[in-house]
Amino acid sequence: MSRILITSGPTREYLDPVRYLSNASSGRMGRAMAAAAMAAGHSVVIVSGPVEVDYAAGAEVIPVVTTQEMLDECLKVFPQCDGAIGVAAPCDYRPASVAPQKLSKTGRSTRLELVQTPDILATLAAGKTSQWIVAFALETEDGRSRALKKLYEKHCDLIVLNGPAAIHSRETAVEVLDPDGRVVASLSGAKDQVAREVFRIIQERLIHRQRATDD
Amino acid sequence: MSRILITSGPTREYLDPVRYLSNASSGRMGRAMAAAAMAAGHSVVIVSGPVEVDYAAGAEVIPVVTTQEMLDECLKVFPQCDGAIGVAAPCDYRPASVAPQKLSKTGRSTRLELVQTPDILATLAAGKTSQWIVAFALETEDGRSRALKKLYEKHCDLIVLNGPAAIHSRETAVEVLDPDGRVVASLSGAKDQVAREVFRIIQERLIHRQRATDD
Repeated sequence: MSRILITSGPTREYLDPVRYLSNASSGRMGRAMAAAAMAAGHSVVIVSGPVEVDYAAGAEVIPVVTTQEMLDECLKVFPQCDGAIGVAAPCDYRPASVAPQKLSKTGRSTRLELVQTPDILATLAAGKTSQWIVAFALETEDGRSRALKKLYEKHCDLIVLNGPAAIHSRETAVEVLDPDGRVVASLSGAKDQVAREVFRIIQERLIHRQRATDD
Repeated sequence: MSRILITSGPTREYLDPVRYLSNASSGRMGRAMAAAAMAAGHSVVIVSGPVEVDYAAGAEVIPVVTTQEMLDECLKVFPQCDGAIGVAAPCDYRPASVAPQKLSKTGRSTRLELVQTPDILATLAAGKTSQWIVAFALETEDGRSRALKKLYEKHCDLIVLNGPAAIHSRETAVEVLDPDGRVVASLSGAKDQVAREVFRIIQERLIHRQRATDD
């Protein structure tokens, strides 16, 4: 049995107590990946941004709001995990400052200063020992090349590429790419079913090999 | 029986196909106000931003994403309504431009140009005939004075002031203010119960008087 960290859902970066930046992400694919890992006999810890979905009973869930909070919680639990699956869609920019009170309308156009947030999987990868890391990438153009760039930058073992049609949908279509740039699998259908297939690939290519190395 | 327009939930203003600006709003108070109106024998049409709550069976629901879409749908249905209750938390700023493809991280800070969106209730009020309008205001400081300013600017008949503790909560605490600046009621408790009390005030002060005028 492996212990697997799964990030899920969006993060939010607040401008003031009410307004925020976020990404379209329901948490459904994160929930489906967690369920697939648990069905295969593993334990999961889900670090999740604000979502309305209910994760499977038996999953440990750590709720967070911002990308920095998601990173902080992941850094705490990752050393006790055998691998991580980054399904979350964390905000990669946050407002340079957060107003303590709700901003009033000015009647004019305005500018929002944004600064980049830390990259969660790249940070985990930088401190990893024997763990494997699988990323998800949502791209709207140049999908394969952008996904592979992310795979290298984040030092991942596999990357799952999906398109915007997956957002807030029960269905998805993905390609699983390996560090050699090969398309390991092209999968489509209900997220639960696609998640089981993706997890089967993780099991075969990463968990079994890790076991073989451990033995 | 009156026909009542209720706006509910947040709106979203996308920067690109994935990232958006939004407001913290679950749609629970909108759902509760709709249920209270229906329980009192009225018909409702709910123009709702993206929410996960299910509105009561029998309510007509028009789903929208942006503030402009919410306004467009409200302008279509309002002429056939006797009144409107603005529970939604529409974005009051949107990005000046929307990128057709997902923006890549630049590694640098960036600026987002924002322009103001139209005010939904003020626009409805400008074109109203005999209809009444009730607004909700969420304020984090100077609550009463800011709420009254909104009541005048939006030409509303009542305004319901609540605080940030109401967001994503099942409970709320509100004050109902009238155009004379009087606190008509201070209510707290479960949103469903507070909604029934707020609706009772709307019924007494606006719907019954409208009926009396019609007769």
